[in-house]
Amino acid sequence: MKIVTIGGGSSYTPEIIEGFINRHKNLPVSEIWLVDIEAGKKKLETVGRLAQRMVEKAGINCKVHLTLNRREALKGASFVTTQFRVGLMEARILDERIPLSHGMIGQETNGFGGFMKALRTIPVILDIAKDMEELCPNAWLINFTNPSSMVTEAVQRFSKIKCVGLCNVPIYLVKTAEQMLGDSNFLLHCVGMNHYLWARHLYYKGNDILPEKLADFVRTTNESEQVRNVKNIPWDVNFVQHLGMMPVSYHRYYYMTEQMLEEELTKFDGGKGKTRGQEVKEVEEKLFKLYEDPDLAVKPKELEERGGTYYSDAACDLIQAIYTNNHQIMIVNTQNNGTLPFLPDDATIETSAMITDAGPIPLKATALPIIAQTELHIMKTFERLTIEAAISGNYDTAIQALTLNPLVKKGEITRQVLNEMIQAHKAHLPKWQVRK
Amino acid sequence: MKIVTIGGGSSYTPEIIEGFINRHKNLPVSEIWLVDIEAGKKKLETVGRLAQRMVEKAGINCKVHLTLNRREALKGASFVTTQFRVGLMEARILDERIPLSHGMIGQETNGFGGFMKALRTIPVILDIAKDMEELCPNAWLINFTNPSSMVTEAVQRFSKIKCVGLCNVPIYLVKTAEQMLGDSNFLLHCVGMNHYLWARHLYYKGNDILPEKLADFVRTTNESEQVRNVKNIPWDVNFVQHLGMMPVSYHRYYYMTEQMLEEELTKFDGGKGKTRGQEVKEVEEKLFKLYEDPDLAVKPKELEERGGTYYSDAACDLIQAIYTNNHQIMIVNTQNNGTLPFLPDDATIETSAMITDAGPIPLKATALPIIAQTELHIMKTFERLTIEAAISGNYDTAIQALTLNPLVKKGEITRQVLNEMIQAHKAHLPKWQVRK
Amino acid sequence: MKIVTIGGGSSYTPEIIEGFINRHKNLPVSEIWLVDIEAGKKKLETVGRLAQRMVEKAGINCKVHLTLNRREALKGASFVTTQFRVGLMEARILDERIPLSHGMIGQETNGFGGFMKALRTIPVILDIAKDMEELCPNAWLINFTNPSSMVTEAVQRFSKIKCVGLCNVPIYLVKTAEQMLGDSNFLLHCVGMNHYLWARHLYYKGNDILPEKLADFVRTTNESEQVRNVKNIPWDVNFVQHLGMMPVSYHRYYYMTEQMLEEELTKFDGGKGKTRGQEVKEVEEKLFKLYEDPDLAVKPKELEERGGTYYSDAACDLIQAIYTNNHQIMIVNTQNNGTLPFLPDDATIETSAMITDAGPIPLKATALPIIAQTELHIMKTFERLTIEAAISGNYDTAIQALTLNPLVKKGEITRQVLNEMIQAHKAHLPKWQVRK
Amino acid sequence: MKIVTIGGGSSYTPEIIEGFINRHKNLPVSEIWLVDIEAGKKKLETVGRLAQRMVEKAGINCKVHLTLNRREALKGASFVTTQFRVGLMEARILDERIPLSHGMIGQETNGFGGFMKALRTIPVILDIAKDMEELCPNAWLINFTNPSSMVTEAVQRFSKIKCVGLCNVPIYLVKTAEQMLGDSNFLLHCVGMNHYLWARHLYYKGNDILPEKLADFVRTTNESEQVRNVKNIPWDVNFVQHLGMMPVSYHRYYYMTEQMLEEELTKFDGGKGKTRGQEVKEVEEKLFKLYEDPDLAVKPKELEERGGTYYSDAACDLIQAIYTNNHQIMIVNTQNNGTLPFLPDDATIETSAMITDAGPIPLKATALPIIAQTELHIMKTFERLTIEAAISGNYDTAIQALTLNPLVKKGEITRQVLNEMIQAHKAHLPKWQVRK
Repeated sequence: MKIVTIGGGSSYTPEIIEGFINRHKNLPVSEIWLVDIEAGKKKLETVGRLAQRMVEKAGINCKVHLTLNRREALKGASFVTTQFRVGLMEARILDERIPLSHGMIGQETNGFGGFMKALRTIPVILDIAKDMEELCPNAWLINFTNPSSMVTEAVQRFSKIKCVGLCNVPIYLVKTAEQMLGDSNFLLHCVGMNHYLWARHLYYKGNDILPEKLADFVRTTNESEQVRNVKNIPWDVNFVQHLGMMPVSYHRYYYMTEQMLEEELTKFDGGKGKTRGQEVKEVEEKLFKLYEDPDLAVKPKELEERGGTYYSDAACDLIQAIYTNNHQIMIVNTQNNGTLPFLPDDATIETSAMITDAGPIPLKATALPIIAQTELHIMKTFERLTIEAAISGNYDTAIQALTLNPLVKKGEITRQVLNEMIQAHKAHLPKWQVRK
Repeated sequence: MKIVTIGGGSSYTPEIIEGFINRHKNLPVSEIWLVDIEAGKKKLETVGRLAQRMVEKAGINCKVHLTLNRREALKGASFVTTQFRVGLMEARILDERIPLSHGMIGQETNGFGGFMKALRTIPVILDIAKDMEELCPNAWLINFTNPSSMVTEAVQRFSKIKCVGLCNVPIYLVKTAEQMLGDSNFLLHCVGMNHYLWARHLYYKGNDILPEKLADFVRTTNESEQVRNVKNIPWDVNFVQHLGMMPVSYHRYYYMTEQMLEEELTKFDGGKGKTRGQEVKEVEEKLFKLYEDPDLAVKPKELEERGGTYYSDAACDLIQAIYTNNHQIMIVNTQNNGTLPFLPDDATIETSAMITDAGPIPLKATALPIIAQTELHIMKTFERLTIEAAISGNYDTAIQALTLNPLVKKGEITRQVLNEMIQAHKAHLPKWQVRK
Repeated sequence: MKIVTIGGGSSYTPEIIEGFINRHKNLPVSEIWLVDIEAGKKKLETVGRLAQRMVEKAGINCKVHLTLNRREALKGASFVTTQFRVGLMEARILDERIPLSHGMIGQETNGFGGFMKALRTIPVILDIAKDMEELCPNAWLINFTNPSSMVTEAVQRFSKIKCVGLCNVPIYLVKTAEQMLGDSNFLLHCVGMNHYLWARHLYYKGNDILPEKLADFVRTTNESEQVRNVKNIPWDVNFVQHLGMMPVSYHRYYYMTEQMLEEELTKFDGGKGKTRGQEVKEVEEKLFKLYEDPDLAVKPKELEERGGTYYSDAACDLIQAIYTNNHQIMIVNTQNNGTLPFLPDDATIETSAMITDAGPIPLKATALPIIAQTELHIMKTFERLTIEAAISGNYDTAIQALTLNPLVKKGEITRQVLNEMIQAHKAHLPKWQVRK
Repeated sequence: MKIVTIGGGSSYTPEIIEGFINRHKNLPVSEIWLVDIEAGKKKLETVGRLAQRMVEKAGINCKVHLTLNRREALKGASFVTTQFRVGLMEARILDERIPLSHGMIGQETNGFGGFMKALRTIPVILDIAKDMEELCPNAWLINFTNPSSMVTEAVQRFSKIKCVGLCNVPIYLVKTAEQMLGDSNFLLHCVGMNHYLWARHLYYKGNDILPEKLADFVRTTNESEQVRNVKNIPWDVNFVQHLGMMPVSYHRYYYMTEQMLEEELTKFDGGKGKTRGQEVKEVEEKLFKLYEDPDLAVKPKELEERGGTYYSDAACDLIQAIYTNNHQIMIVNTQNNGTLPFLPDDATIETSAMITDAGPIPLKATALPIIAQTELHIMKTFERLTIEAAISGNYDTAIQALTLNPLVKKGEITRQVLNEMIQAHKAHLPKWQVRK
């Protein structure tokens, strides 16, 4: 079994390698190909050698290849994972800083920043999918490149490659439920979209206890460690109880927009402060320092500070579930097909699903509250217009998408910031031109 | 035929009186009852006497009654029109100033202000409808009390009274089309919701010419006089053409939020400036000065400055169309019943309809673009949650409604402003209490 | 204004000519082209000369042309009407007799017979529409070729020609309501599909009186003259009242299948009896005898026995309504576009609509009872599969369509009768082959 | 754990007892209460004593109680299964013979017979559910009383009791797939309604192989043993391939109505022949003879001839899956909740689902072909009208339901046969009266 990791020079790589090592008995990976581009060559070599040392130390029968030749790597692959970032961390920092300088949420996957990341990433992922159609048409593409919902939907709609999107955010919901119950023998049925997911049912000892446990769930969430990317501003118990479902951390951008914005603007400090991207960049630099140590042959603990914890674990679990057809229930990004009847059949949603070797089969939840249906309708229409814009390069479609996004300021300013963004990301947006 | 006008002390009254005078041949109104509350007694007397002089001068067979006794007035009425304002102009001014002082759009019918107006008005209109069920169960309620969409929907869903909502905004679309074509022999098919309406088709000489005439339509709109309440910031031709439909003036709050907000904040000047409500109040004071003149026996030209031009004209047209069953096409607020299949059947929408003596029958337009469907989905869900909150007094439902509204800031601030509003409007919100 | 009538050699022609003569003041038709095929040459000449004598006698400024050259006729036409019959009356007789010989309803437009007529007619109408796209792209096609719903839908979906379908059956509903009320000042709002239509609302003096007048409506229908094609078996008042809408005559095939079948089988008498097609053929022969009389210059009264009364009247009314943009309410076959939200947007339905010069705009009725929705779902799916089969020639699609039709026997017999039909109609079904 | 079996005197009982014996290790049932009514006392004693001997011989720690006191039995139950037949086998025989004598399909669960069975059974099951609400509100009702879809839906909609419906028919699909593949390591994803179910996907080794295996599936089905109740007339490979899904045996009543009817009529022989009910009655009499043997202490092999094979096995599997929360995939009758988006949320459907201790969670299949959607729409509307009639006793609703059913003759005959049925089943239809 051959695994290919696009963006193999990422600081995350030791985590996924550890994942494969730990599962080797049930998931006998024989080749791991770490692929990167010329600009990431140095990082690829550093982290790649660590990966090789890890595998060697583990004593498993598996070979780690490092390459800049994507097509060579893809040939005959069984699973392809993606963790690349078009424009590297510098692009993310622009996605954060430009909106902030105009008083808008500046965030990697939400609002204007998430929109720009989609414009840059979708053409690249479709290129990869096209290569896969030729070189490994039966391989699974396990996407955890953000914005995961849009990137996954682009592949699912515009290529023939089997693709599942993954995210670490839902895992925090599950961990919190576990912490609250002091028991792991439950089923948390989640449904929504990536970064816009809710826990809808909590099945425990024969009943859906979510309604009576919501207040408790909120308290546990407010007090426990959550995803690092999003400031853990406490949820209002009344608000969540009236909603009747448990939101994920990222919902704060929509339900507490002002507090999140204030928080970000304070940190940004009129341009003098750092954004999350810059912090992560520093963490990464430190990590790569560690990775260079030729005596290091395990995943260093410091990687956990990086943010994307559980990501690679989820990816390895998913690969194993597909490979062994073990019918595990996971929360994944897959095609709607009527699971949320008010969204198009070919929309990508995030949902609890049973994993089979033919892919995820969504579990059907009861109808969402009308407010949640409305929110998903907004977010998905924004996403579909964004995907359309990313593929066509149509400026007006871009404006229309942004006009629907609740985190973007509307009117003349939308055009101005879009122009500024096109200018700033010019190298990675070949189809796009400023419009006066 | 007996007509009752609730809020008869309004400065608008001369317009509706003129309307009945002009149509008297086809619409033989024999009694007009102007009703107001104690607080509006003086204005009722002033404008009421003018009304009486107007009718007398016109020499038609019709008697104008002035009363503070609503139930007496309603008995046996054929048509009831409403133009009242719970809390008078002072309440409107609060609806504008409080949001502005928190950096949000401060507007009578949109955003936080419109929400508060709905909370105050819906219980009152339902009281009126209840009286009507008893005293004139077959009468038509012609509502032009704002926010018209929510007020009309409340009556249509929660009483047995036949109700149609009216607005002057669509008339500007029609006037603009007329100006553009230099011809009045066309059919402008409009659909959407009140203050969120689009011209969807422009039938002219056998074809729907809207698509090729949109740019022209935009230019004509940008250059012509429009509804006074909304600053006429020019539309971007590209934006409208990509949308494929002609928006109304109020769409600027949603498509150019930043410019509208800036405009308002500049005028507000940190609290030192006046809002539209205050201007209107001054205009009204001047009007009432004029109305006092015992020699005045026609509608004074100055009333046109007031803002609601065409309103009363529309009301008289509608009453005549119902009375004569003339199958006129008008743009009215009526129940959806599948006209917009993605909204509930019992939602009130604004649409071109054929008027019969059994009420409006909507004309069916082709499917809206997905972006418009999404926007209406948001706005209608906001409205339905607001109606629910207005009836129940539930604080959490109010927060949920506001969280969906694109013109309201989200998070802790929502609660703070709601509390401030409840405090400020205490006298007209008996069910509502501040929540810390 | 040039009118073209395809199938101009039909015995109906004097009626449509009379219609144009009577309306000439408002509808100044200057040329009428009667087109037929070689096989219909003699009839065309006979009825065509009568038409010429009628126009001459009326003294209007209009010329009647007779031609076998369809393309010459179509050039520059304003309106094209169709009244042709592929395979002439002989084909209809086969459509009736073959199903009857297998114990199934044998009827021109319903069941197996209607299905076969669609297979023969759809390719021909699409050919005509293709000619029109080239020779008179702005002309209106007024279709009254049966099965009207499928033939109209085929044109509306698979050509660019503007097309409205018409039928005389709804007129009987209107006439019956008029007879019942003793007044013509009402609005009968009908909705459904061709030959599967219901009166949904009866607006009269300000109210929808249908519910309380249904029993009366049933009685009036049972006692009055109805469409000649369908035996007037009395409706059960209980049944119709529970349905809550007034059915058309053709509904008897679905709601009283057994009685209709018995009636037909008795008349058929094991093959010794005549079917309706044979009777009509005889009537037609007599009519043509009359038509030959060079002194005849008006529509002979005997034509009314023929069956399609009101058809041509409806066509002339529709043409006039489009031409003068008079906003008349008519019951027509037009695209659904959400009027019946449970059917596809591009399905052709029959509905009350306001006629404009840009075509019919459907009036929106309230939701149909669930049983009616289900029935229309069946009938429309049958129709769409039939259209698909008529275009593709796919045998399995044909079987699938027939399997859904409530008047067709299911199983091996379906295949047998389809084979027999293909054999019998071979000359007009070039794409079809028997399958053993 | 206490299990209650309503209709415990059924000849099936030894099978369910064997099921509990075989699963005792994982499903430690401690009490089994067999309940029956006075009329079934003798059978209850015979089969009950056999059950007691079986349990004793198996040496498991479980007690079998026999009682005519349903309320005593229900108190504190964990699971209640139902296998009763209102009116016993005599009622079934009438359901078969009366329609046949009028030339209609005479069948226990389909057409007129299934309709009558629903009228008799639904009031009784709702009584049982009412008792359960009082005596064992947390128990699961495992229904395998036919017509299972309607009986289960009645409980799911009109009581608070948790209910799952079961049928043995889907098991034959699974067995046939197993036989075809020579492997049991596949997932057959089925969806539809009870006795109207299709295999939609066949996941095997990472792919949905149903499309390319359909012809094979048809051949295997045609050649293998299938459910005994339905004559195994071979499927037409073309028909099934065009459908794109594998039908169940009962689909023959709808897809091959004529052949099935001929088959039945031949056997019925103008009233001289036996129906399936009579055969089963004879088999049962023989079985009860066997059961009386005091030396018999195992399920006799002859029971397999009875027809309902796998039924009890399915029930025991389901009870075990709920009890152990083992996430097994089973095909069950449960609430739709959007699984089939074109049917109401509260409709009961049959679908592959993951079984948890909180009930089944449906697996989401891709959209059904439009023909299947239409068919389910018919069948479900028929069912819902039938349930409504069974509860209300409304004669017109009954006629409406029957008019929709494809196996029932329409018109005057419907009323005649309904009257005959009401007369024949008088003792078990207290609400119903003949209408002349």
